[in-house]
Amino acid sequence: MNMKICLMPGDGIGPEIVTQAVKVLEKVAAKFGHTVETESALIGGAAIDAVGNPLPEATVAACKAADAVLLGAVGGPKWDTIDPAIRPEKGLLGIRKALGLFSNLRPAVLFPELAAAAYLRPDIIGQGLDIMVVRELTGGAYFGEPRGETVVNGERAAFNTMIYSESEIERIVRVACEIARKRGKKLCSVDKANVLDVSRLWREVAIRTAAEYPDVELSHMYVDNAAMQLIRDPSQFDVIVTENLFGDILSDEASIITGSIGMLPSASMGSGGPALFEPIHGSAPDIAGRDIANPLATILSVSMMLRFAFGLEAEAESIDAAVKSVLAQGFRTGDIFVGEGKKVGCSEMGALVLGAI
Amino acid sequence: MNMKICLMPGDGIGPEIVTQAVKVLEKVAAKFGHTVETESALIGGAAIDAVGNPLPEATVAACKAADAVLLGAVGGPKWDTIDPAIRPEKGLLGIRKALGLFSNLRPAVLFPELAAAAYLRPDIIGQGLDIMVVRELTGGAYFGEPRGETVVNGERAAFNTMIYSESEIERIVRVACEIARKRGKKLCSVDKANVLDVSRLWREVAIRTAAEYPDVELSHMYVDNAAMQLIRDPSQFDVIVTENLFGDILSDEASIITGSIGMLPSASMGSGGPALFEPIHGSAPDIAGRDIANPLATILSVSMMLRFAFGLEAEAESIDAAVKSVLAQGFRTGDIFVGEGKKVGCSEMGALVLGAI
Ligand SMILES: CC(C)[C@H](C(=O)O)[C@@H](O)C(=O)O
Ligand SMILES: CC(C)[C@H](C(=O)O)[C@@H](O)C(=O)O
Repeated sequence: MNMKICLMPGDGIGPEIVTQAVKVLEKVAAKFGHTVETESALIGGAAIDAVGNPLPEATVAACKAADAVLLGAVGGPKWDTIDPAIRPEKGLLGIRKALGLFSNLRPAVLFPELAAAAYLRPDIIGQGLDIMVVRELTGGAYFGEPRGETVVNGERAAFNTMIYSESEIERIVRVACEIARKRGKKLCSVDKANVLDVSRLWREVAIRTAAEYPDVELSHMYVDNAAMQLIRDPSQFDVIVTENLFGDILSDEASIITGSIGMLPSASMGSGGPALFEPIHGSAPDIAGRDIANPLATILSVSMMLRFAFGLEAEAESIDAAVKSVLAQGFRTGDIFVGEGKKVGCSEMGALVLGAI
Repeated sequence: MNMKICLMPGDGIGPEIVTQAVKVLEKVAAKFGHTVETESALIGGAAIDAVGNPLPEATVAACKAADAVLLGAVGGPKWDTIDPAIRPEKGLLGIRKALGLFSNLRPAVLFPELAAAAYLRPDIIGQGLDIMVVRELTGGAYFGEPRGETVVNGERAAFNTMIYSESEIERIVRVACEIARKRGKKLCSVDKANVLDVSRLWREVAIRTAAEYPDVELSHMYVDNAAMQLIRDPSQFDVIVTENLFGDILSDEASIITGSIGMLPSASMGSGGPALFEPIHGSAPDIAGRDIANPLATILSVSMMLRFAFGLEAEAESIDAAVKSVLAQGFRTGDIFVGEGKKVGCSEMGALVLGAI
């Protein structure tokens, strides 16, 4: 198979971690007799600096022409005071919209080797942790219109619109049901239906859609309670499905609990068309360029890409196994180092995984 | 002093816990030479059942006529399928709006006696925990107009409006600054300014307002990062100020971390007029009527009431001390029982606190 991958290294540690991940991708491809064509495209702050636009036309075109997209990270304090219309984040939001990536899969998994790094009490984390957060990614307050500023009673007011249509809700719930079906068959839909109109429609459509999946057990939880339950008893969750803003908050919460946030990949997918894969963590500008970032989340994003975009299960598995073996040998980047093992940098960690494939 | 208190026991465990808290209030009042007049008013599911309306006119009038309001809890599965226009929660939202209670103080405190019940790793919780979440309570998506359902491209869509005016932001940031000034002098304003217009105005006004409090150090954090940081390093926070929906989520997260959610009171205040005090936890319908609920959060809400509504510091202190001594003696309700100590029920816990005053 020939795989055309568009690389968007982005900002901060983005370029370092993407470099390592690409080496791994090329090695796996070679091993299994595939070929990889890569093209790099500008996004975020890097694109602002180069061409004054966080999402140049050429980037959208390059993504659309690819089979899949690998993103590093975007943003940093350098662009914090920039005109909001061209913030680095606009690049990320723009490419999600341009590619129609409505479904964002964020697994929160505890790596047994890293159990000591988990933040919850050992007896709670004890049974391990394996939650899949399915976040709606192109709707809600992120994109809702109208939005902006107005004048109310003689003073400024700013507003956004949280809005979902039936079909937007239905398609993301469907994705979540399909995933739940292949896992623990439990789906928890998170909303704030006791307060928000948009959540009441969400719940209604979730019930209706999930009814087509009788083997999947659907439950509902208010978002405030979900934020609590993730801490009180995370193992009650299998798959969580929720809207964009709640998903942003809850997926970050779920992933930090594992203590392995530097380890967690994510996938953003549409209906057909190229999907986008990226680490869950941010651009970490404070450690950028020092070769100490953890490339594993990006490397595992490549594994997710092989599995979800190309259906190459054995190839994906070979990356997962290589990562596990490197961890088992005690190698750790700074973020997952908790007193034991051997501390390594970004490129060294990449080389270790490469060696283990 | 004569204190006119409006009691709203509400639903689930509400009546049981309010009963215990009122006994404590009366005992403290007697001890310090004050008098208490109480009146009970219907709210939530109890009000729906009695008069078909979660917030009867008479309840609003009774609250307005009182010096302070003590609430148990509202809601339960019994009313889950009721017409959304008269859900139990409408009673709570309605009384907040009717009394202009724009500022919601939710302390997340770790009781040293209950450290074993905390959910985070002991080395993280180690230094203790004392965060005050200041949540805006009468704005944002909770009350924003327009809201409801519409038809877009031939299908149903539902929407809410997240909206804040400058003055709404300014007054809540001011409250938070005043509180920070009396504590650790650190204020973290939480928003999603990298995505939402409403958050960008929030941040702008927060900066402008906090500038009047040069002794208070202001920082900003995105809500997804805040959800992570509360777990990764909660002791970095002193006072958090945020909008209604983010505050709903983050205050629940902050309070569960302590493991003491059955212990945590809250205050909702306006500018002048009666303030409302209530436990942070919900109506716990599953254990209602079995005399096993934890009345301590409601008892500590009375302490908060004495302190904030009446300026009676010594009186409040006598309740805090009584609760501490009962905990130190090892008495625990089921929710905070972790293997050691003596398990007691709701009325027994109330009697113990009463005895310790
Ligand atoms: C950078 C930001 C716009 C983005 C989001 O809020 O979606 C990020 O937090 C994420 O979760 O991918
Ligand atoms: C019951 C519900 C309407 C309420 C809210 O969302 O404000 C509750 O969760 C709270 O935090 O007091």
